[in-house]
Amino acid sequence: MSETRPAARRRGRRPAGEDTRSALLAAARVEFAERGFDGATVRRIADRAGVDAAMVNHWFGGKERLFTASLDLPMDPDAILAEVLPGDPEQLGERIIAMFLRVWDATGGGPLAALIRSVAGHEQAARMMREFVARVILGRFIREVAPDRPDLRAALCATQIIGLGMIRYVLRLEPLASADHQTVVTTIAPSLQRYLTGELG
Amino acid sequence: MSETRPAARRRGRRPAGEDTRSALLAAARVEFAERGFDGATVRRIADRAGVDAAMVNHWFGGKERLFTASLDLPMDPDAILAEVLPGDPEQLGERIIAMFLRVWDATGGGPLAALIRSVAGHEQAARMMREFVARVILGRFIREVAPDRPDLRAALCATQIIGLGMIRYVLRLEPLASADHQTVVTTIAPSLQRYLTGELG
Repeated sequence: MSETRPAARRRGRRPAGEDTRSALLAAARVEFAERGFDGATVRRIADRAGVDAAMVNHWFGGKERLFTASLDLPMDPDAILAEVLPGDPEQLGERIIAMFLRVWDATGGGPLAALIRSVAGHEQAARMMREFVARVILGRFIREVAPDRPDLRAALCATQIIGLGMIRYVLRLEPLASADHQTVVTTIAPSLQRYLTGELG
Repeated sequence: MSETRPAARRRGRRPAGEDTRSALLAAARVEFAERGFDGATVRRIADRAGVDAAMVNHWFGGKERLFTASLDLPMDPDAILAEVLPGDPEQLGERIIAMFLRVWDATGGGPLAALIRSVAGHEQAARMMREFVARVILGRFIREVAPDRPDLRAALCATQIIGLGMIRYVLRLEPLASADHQTVVTTIAPSLQRYLTGELG
């Protein structure tokens, strides 16, 4: 049997560890979907995965990062924030749109369609995304740049960003579907910038 | 989209025919929402409605036209255009957002979630929406108000409008999910207005 195994496993490079990580991610998706972020517990996720609860900290550094990992986003939110936050706050909209294009263009858009389908079809998935926005986008991002009405600004930003994703990657409506990054940034970033730091009226 | 009158109606179909049509639309909404365009079958829709499958062709001319009718775009595009176009072109963004809220709030958002799920899951549905945008939004609307780069402006408007729909009705992210119309119009209409008639950069 061993000759049919992947090379990495035959070489014995951390097979148990990768299995533990995968099992934790699968268990986390079920637990977060069923109970939401606040209701979920690290212990119950570890139990579901059949591993020790200490493995959550070992592999993910805690419940929140396990949560973001379980969303299967093509990015590490912490790395994203570290890259877009520094710099002129008045050009933050441009940096966010440019990053969004880099991240999702690289995937071909398929994972975004799957994510949107899931959110539109399953209240549990919608709840996970709401909590992601609330905890990560709002809690660790918007409040830093927009202390005035941060909840509303976060939701407004979400309309423009998810709308861009829908049109470029899911509906694939031209000319935005194949527009170069500079065109997309130039046309859309001002809207995002107003939602972030501008006068909302 | 559902305003196309079949020949049978022009010939004076009796109310029983309207009942059949309504029953088919109701059944189609359930079937398409549950299975998407490809998974849905004309036969199962007719069974759900308790009528013969031939009634789908009779009333709608086939599965695809039944699908567009069942999208329950709760509007007649011509009536929408007649209502939002007159007036100051510089307040067109406000009139469009206000109309969008009136139209979709009245549905509770369910049909929009079904529509987005179909578009995200089925290339055929995405193509139908692209054609709807090209024919109705672009062909009969944007060119009138924005002769400069109408294709790009139409796609940019689509990002903001579909994004608002996603956040308010599908993800139901607060505070936008339950914000009063004036707040939504005041905050979002300026973005739409720039896409319609403003400087794109």
